[in-house]
Amino acid sequence: MTSPEIPDSIRIAGNEKAAKDILSKIWGKRGTFTCTVGSTMTSAIPGISDAGGTPELTLLTGPADAELITLGHTVCIDGVPVNPPEGIPTPGLLTISALTLSKLPHHIINAGCKVAPSIPYYDVGGHYGESILTGKAVKDAREMFERGKVLGELLARDQEYLVVSESIAGGTTTALATMMAIGTLRENLVSSSSPRNPKELKTNTVLQALKTAGLEIGSCKNDPLRAVECVGDPMIAVNAGVVLGASKHTPVILGGGTQMSAVLSVAAAIDPTVVTRVMHGTTRWLINDPNSDLVKIDMGISPEIPIVYINMDYSKSPYKGLQAYEQGFIKEGVGCGGASIAAVISSAGRITCDDILEEEHRIYREILNLE
Amino acid sequence: MTSPEIPDSIRIAGNEKAAKDILSKIWGKRGTFTCTVGSTMTSAIPGISDAGGTPELTLLTGPADAELITLGHTVCIDGVPVNPPEGIPTPGLLTISALTLSKLPHHIINAGCKVAPSIPYYDVGGHYGESILTGKAVKDAREMFERGKVLGELLARDQEYLVVSESIAGGTTTALATMMAIGTLRENLVSSSSPRNPKELKTNTVLQALKTAGLEIGSCKNDPLRAVECVGDPMIAVNAGVVLGASKHTPVILGGGTQMSAVLSVAAAIDPTVVTRVMHGTTRWLINDPNSDLVKIDMGISPEIPIVYINMDYSKSPYKGLQAYEQGFIKEGVGCGGASIAAVISSAGRITCDDILEEEHRIYREILNLE
Repeated sequence: MTSPEIPDSIRIAGNEKAAKDILSKIWGKRGTFTCTVGSTMTSAIPGISDAGGTPELTLLTGPADAELITLGHTVCIDGVPVNPPEGIPTPGLLTISALTLSKLPHHIINAGCKVAPSIPYYDVGGHYGESILTGKAVKDAREMFERGKVLGELLARDQEYLVVSESIAGGTTTALATMMAIGTLRENLVSSSSPRNPKELKTNTVLQALKTAGLEIGSCKNDPLRAVECVGDPMIAVNAGVVLGASKHTPVILGGGTQMSAVLSVAAAIDPTVVTRVMHGTTRWLINDPNSDLVKIDMGISPEIPIVYINMDYSKSPYKGLQAYEQGFIKEGVGCGGASIAAVISSAGRITCDDILEEEHRIYREILNLE
Repeated sequence: MTSPEIPDSIRIAGNEKAAKDILSKIWGKRGTFTCTVGSTMTSAIPGISDAGGTPELTLLTGPADAELITLGHTVCIDGVPVNPPEGIPTPGLLTISALTLSKLPHHIINAGCKVAPSIPYYDVGGHYGESILTGKAVKDAREMFERGKVLGELLARDQEYLVVSESIAGGTTTALATMMAIGTLRENLVSSSSPRNPKELKTNTVLQALKTAGLEIGSCKNDPLRAVECVGDPMIAVNAGVVLGASKHTPVILGGGTQMSAVLSVAAAIDPTVVTRVMHGTTRWLINDPNSDLVKIDMGISPEIPIVYINMDYSKSPYKGLQAYEQGFIKEGVGCGGASIAAVISSAGRITCDDILEEEHRIYREILNLE
């Protein structure tokens, strides 16, 4: 087909030609959304992660998001995951809104959670991750990667495209460590769910983790799974496999921020051709974040990578919890950007950001019992 | 659409009008295949089950079949599951052949296995089943049923139809016990993977199990999940939920023999309208079995139930392991009938039994290292 008229709801960054090519292929077609959830003890290092509330609660953010997407409510915690002190709600609310409107099917993949979500999920034999400060962050990373690859092939069969995403608190720190060990990133450009990105703490944690693991910047270039094993997280191990397996059969949308760049970094170090079969899908908030640089990270992996972002704007939302996204809170996660982009693509642009926001307001009121 | 010309590859039993109605709706359309695997200690009662070899090996039949379908080889056992002493191979070979030819996607659901399969699978929080002689056969049956229902809804979304099937050794005995406790079956009409169906042993085991559980024939009519809890197996608990959840959104093919009748029996006792949204899909071998009576069992649940069977015939196969099916060995399992029927339906009849058999011969040689 000819190149679609790109609607105002989505914008292109990264490699524009590649983005238009991939959009042309899947425009108006229905894909499947997946979200890989997990926990890493890295998130419990005080100050590293806001995603969930207290350091202990951050361990439940992944499973709680999985429950929220699947059931419309959480089981392992009361209410939805929030960032303190403002109580800003999980981006999972945007994800559900996009999935509800588009009626796209979804699967939850449990990469390894401290507490397993109380829902049906794809199990890949994973365990929750240890703190990267141990230098032994992911047990059985290679086996989880292999199962992820089988799962990617399974899920891609008969699909027009697959969205692969994540929810794991502490994940930007493990992403930074993984990309530094592989050498695709040499400075701290990763994002944070806080507008006060604790960059120094994260950089110091990562450098200490690399040292404990006996790694240097770039030393895992030829063995990226060693980077994941030592200083990554379970989500990266599994999703690197899912992306490689699925992209053999169908285009893959990497739904998320700089954590999904770490997934791509591992996958591309194993098979460099993967960059021609994926598109990074994120949010306007993440692209506009002054404290991180997704485009620069991706271009460091390969200049071929297309990036598309959903043009959501919460500034006119009546809810403070959503308005906060405009001040740099949250910005991404639970594949909210990827799910929204998939909603636009699957409807050939008929679903707009306004439609998604209206649905989100409805769901927001319902889930938070507001009137 | 008008009623399709039913090809010679499939035949109708049960309610003919309902079968033609459902076939018209889904003819030429692509569905998804699922197989729910599990273990019950019931299979380790000497003489109850041949599926797998020794009583201990029967516990691994479900997980081994799951690995076979997903990877094309097994991990938890050497070679493929066989029935002794002749070494007749698992019907999973027919399932893979049908799925490979039709390219239909599949999901494995782990209802509770003694040894978890070494592949990605849907987890519903299940445990392997105890012997029904304990009167406490399935722990958390109600929770597993509920998760099955959520999973059925998830998997049915965006699907034209869903095949729901099983692999669990000892499962015809638990099926008989469940249906007797509910009261839809009052005599032993269930099948067996052996042509020497050990009916007396099975009946006696079931009657003893009912007694231990404090149940009588029909006493669980209004609480079918209690039947599963006391004398069923994990597969029945989960699949009853999957069928009810999925059939809200899409037609469901119950792929299997009398074990799937037990699933239907539980589901129909909870929601009698389910019988209008399902079709039982099995094999010619099962329908022609002189030692069991699937049609009579199903008609006892409801005269509305359509039954379709795949007209496979192994009598001209060069392999003794397959020829044995014509002598009454195996007959059904791992959704081989349902997968074959789905292959015929999805191709609007272009895929024939001959095509499937040719593919099976190829796979048979490959997997069994024959020339």
